Amino acid sequence: MEFSSKLLERAVNEMSQLPGIGKRTALRLVLHLLRQPKEQTTALSQALQNMRSTIKFCEFCHNISDFNLCEICANPNRNETIICVVEDVKDVMAIENTSSFKGLYHVLGGKISPMDGIGPHDLNIETLVKKVKQGVVKELIFALSSTMEGDTTNFYIYKQIQDYNVITSTIARGISVGDELEYADEITLGRSIVNRIPFETSLKL
Amino acid sequence: MEFSSKLLERAVNEMSQLPGIGKRTALRLVLHLLRQPKEQTTALSQALQNMRSTIKFCEFCHNISDFNLCEICANPNRNETIICVVEDVKDVMAIENTSSFKGLYHVLGGKISPMDGIGPHDLNIETLVKKVKQGVVKELIFALSSTMEGDTTNFYIYKQIQDYNVITSTIARGISVGDELEYADEITLGRSIVNRIPFETSLKL
Ligand SMILES: [Zn+2]
Ligand SMILES: [Zn+2]
Repeated sequence: MEFSSKLLERAVNEMSQLPGIGKRTALRLVLHLLRQPKEQTTALSQALQNMRSTIKFCEFCHNISDFNLCEICANPNRNETIICVVEDVKDVMAIENTSSFKGLYHVLGGKISPMDGIGPHDLNIETLVKKVKQGVVKELIFALSSTMEGDTTNFYIYKQIQDYNVITSTIARGISVGDELEYADEITLGRSIVNRIPFETSLKL
Repeated sequence: MEFSSKLLERAVNEMSQLPGIGKRTALRLVLHLLRQPKEQTTALSQALQNMRSTIKFCEFCHNISDFNLCEICANPNRNETIICVVEDVKDVMAIENTSSFKGLYHVLGGKISPMDGIGPHDLNIETLVKKVKQGVVKELIFALSSTMEGDTTNFYIYKQIQDYNVITSTIARGISVGDELEYADEITLGRSIVNRIPFETSLKL
């Protein structure tokens, strides 16, 4: 691509670093910004900068948060004895949208995937096991996507906590095998929470 | 969409102002930035801000430029007697990629489109007519997309300059009618420049 402007070229190159944004799409987005009032570019740049530099992760559940404790963990009306274990922040948002769950979350930050070099110690598993050991938690709901990596992660966590007095369940497999949680429709996802089954039972399916 | 962070929400909202970027895509892009080093977000934000606040439009051809005169207009090896008239900056880039044209450009900034409320005076037509009147230009190549709006714009300009001593041509219609120039492959686009035909001839096709 031939650029008549280094400023334009740099903007397009940075924009095309984003996943799924090729050079052509980046160029279109950048030229769009040039046609809009300067304030729009300022607002976008500042929102990204502010977010990246000041956003926190909840000390308790590792969810994205503006404070040390996220709004969910800080809410006294949520049931702290049930914890829903998810891969990432998008899954928390997806489950919250269903309004079917009133417990707390635990965001692992991914799933165990030797192929991608992600082991148990790259994830927020230790803090979860610690919570279980402290005895307040009565039930863990595994809400990872039903892929091999998801199953491996569930099982790894299960082995660590099986000697403690905690019920483990997995969300109902209403969600097709291999599908990402975030793309599930709200009703299916909501039901899969309500109809969760004991983890031991899920191993025999 | 339920956000656990106002900073995240604001970033996603600003990102989803961009054309073709829905809320879900915006969320994915923003979460990606959160997983990358802070420097990437800083580089992106600054590149967009710098571009938007300091980019110029070439005084002669209205192309995007870092200087008052763009690199093409400032290049003494380009033939200033042939001007290729295009809709926007992406078309200049597309034609430059073909290496088939060694003249100068004139970027109209769009095409006449009464439906969208775009009249001749919203475009850079006056400066083009002025160039022709000054007598240096020997040929104008109309390289607008072959849509009704493109044809209308060509004809409007043609009427303004037909009494002056200038040849008018249009790029060969190797490009399918209705297609945008920027999506044409390089060979087709290159040939359409080389095989351009007199504008008067094109009116009879
Ligand atoms: Zn939290
Ligand atoms: Zn120029």
